[in-house]
Amino acid sequence: MSFGKQKNNPKRKVALIGCGLIGQSWAISFLTAGFDVSLFDPVEDVTVQAKENIKAKLRDLQNNGLLENKNISDYLDKIHLAQNLSHAVKGSVYVQESGPEDLDIKKELTKKIDAATATDIPIASSTSGIPASLYASDVKGRCRCLVAHPINPPHLIPAVEIVPAPFTSAAITQTVKKFIISIDKEPLELKKEIPGFVVNRLQGALLSEAFNLIKDGISSAEDIDKAISEGLGLRWSFMGPFQTIHLNAPEGIGGYVKRYEKMYREMFNDPDVDWSSVVKLGLEEELLNLYSLEEQKKHEERRDHKLIQFIIHKKSSEKSI
Amino acid sequence: MSFGKQKNNPKRKVALIGCGLIGQSWAISFLTAGFDVSLFDPVEDVTVQAKENIKAKLRDLQNNGLLENKNISDYLDKIHLAQNLSHAVKGSVYVQESGPEDLDIKKELTKKIDAATATDIPIASSTSGIPASLYASDVKGRCRCLVAHPINPPHLIPAVEIVPAPFTSAAITQTVKKFIISIDKEPLELKKEIPGFVVNRLQGALLSEAFNLIKDGISSAEDIDKAISEGLGLRWSFMGPFQTIHLNAPEGIGGYVKRYEKMYREMFNDPDVDWSSVVKLGLEEELLNLYSLEEQKKHEERRDHKLIQFIIHKKSSEKSI
Repeated sequence: MSFGKQKNNPKRKVALIGCGLIGQSWAISFLTAGFDVSLFDPVEDVTVQAKENIKAKLRDLQNNGLLENKNISDYLDKIHLAQNLSHAVKGSVYVQESGPEDLDIKKELTKKIDAATATDIPIASSTSGIPASLYASDVKGRCRCLVAHPINPPHLIPAVEIVPAPFTSAAITQTVKKFIISIDKEPLELKKEIPGFVVNRLQGALLSEAFNLIKDGISSAEDIDKAISEGLGLRWSFMGPFQTIHLNAPEGIGGYVKRYEKMYREMFNDPDVDWSSVVKLGLEEELLNLYSLEEQKKHEERRDHKLIQFIIHKKSSEKSI
Repeated sequence: MSFGKQKNNPKRKVALIGCGLIGQSWAISFLTAGFDVSLFDPVEDVTVQAKENIKAKLRDLQNNGLLENKNISDYLDKIHLAQNLSHAVKGSVYVQESGPEDLDIKKELTKKIDAATATDIPIASSTSGIPASLYASDVKGRCRCLVAHPINPPHLIPAVEIVPAPFTSAAITQTVKKFIISIDKEPLELKKEIPGFVVNRLQGALLSEAFNLIKDGISSAEDIDKAISEGLGLRWSFMGPFQTIHLNAPEGIGGYVKRYEKMYREMFNDPDVDWSSVVKLGLEEELLNLYSLEEQKKHEERRDHKLIQFIIHKKSSEKSI
């Protein structure tokens, strides 16, 4: 087994603008999928250090048997350190910007990238929460601007959020999704923009509750962490929250919500909790299409089988550290 | 490798009152740790069916090499189907009640168990959200009543929330934690009662946000599930939310909150988000004691190593299904 499908992407080059941790991770994902990469960073010498860090991380993957090529140099030879933005984007089929998380900087940088890049090339941003509507609306080629947000550490986590603005062309969005799939990642396309997107909103909601539990003296941080790492997180590592509750009642999500909605409403002292309406407005239908009740038993068995396999893996991996 | 440490618990018997899915899972955990178990359910014939289900699940564990004994019958012989409550609790060193999630039923059932059980024996409830203060305050032996809440499927998930009421004796709480550890599970002790405890509050907060995202038409349920199962859940399967963000900034959680608190406050449009104060009130100190900044690089490497190992495991386990 190895990362990526390098043979599918020969002689194609992508430009990575901004070479901190996120930019470096993108480099690894594109390199191991067979792309050439041009690195550019506005701060001098950052790309040289970035190349060193990429080398170290590639070696990690190699030591775990996750690289197709025998020689690290086969990948390093495909890294081009660009002296300026124009050099970086020249001949690139895709541009990924991973600059600082600052609206004004992102506006400025996106304008510069747009001016330097051939008009049909997608310009994706790694921003973890700023919608393209906010940073790209004044950009001439805004129809090829959108967000492709990876999750730390991005060379290891598959999910990438794809967030088009209303002005982003549908064709560009499709092209970007294909790029993401071609580097062996999992694109999640949002239907509408929202600050924080999906990943950070889910994380933020959980964190807000965790901070409240600390503030109210309910539990230690260590035990809250264990509630996830020895509890909820075991299922969530292969099954999202909706599938989890869908499997936790014989009647699926409809039954779960019927049984527990009141408990959650009282728990959060929030009369606005109205999950029943959401269930009826299409959520139950989607989940029943994905996981029918006739196959509920099979899905439960699969969940338990995956959990058993994971627990065996986890115990043996804890021993080895 | 095998579940439990059966040699440590010979000839000790526990009583399991209520034999639905949760009670059956408790049976497996106690049996594989070497205990005898008495099963009792107020509904006739439920215990007979429960024993069949326990047998099937034990076989699953056996097929995965997780049982110490060669013969399933070695475990089944240790199951006693009690004709009534008194028979079940007689000679038991521990009582776990897994009745319906209904306050009135739980009040009644706990009174009956208390009246039938020797006074020094702990009586724990599997309730997923009702504090002992609510269901046991009128019970004569309330000082030995508390919550021990497992997570579905409980024979596979290690975390068990221990929630004493203000009237629960500290000695009983310690005894229950020792029982939980002796069956190879991970007790998380809450310092104060709160409806929903920690696990369901964390799950509920994430679910509330997920339901809102569906209601607002931001994403499909399938993609929200993937944001967890192909994203956040990979880290959370071995590292809780606090350790995760502590590692996501070079200065630890203090730096993370400094950098991102404003983003979360604006994301949720909630001026009450004040994580900085919580950080200063002991959270940062606890996390720095657990994971010092001097070792930040080591912890990052360990995280990446675990992620790599887990991704290899996950890919190979997906192939096998």
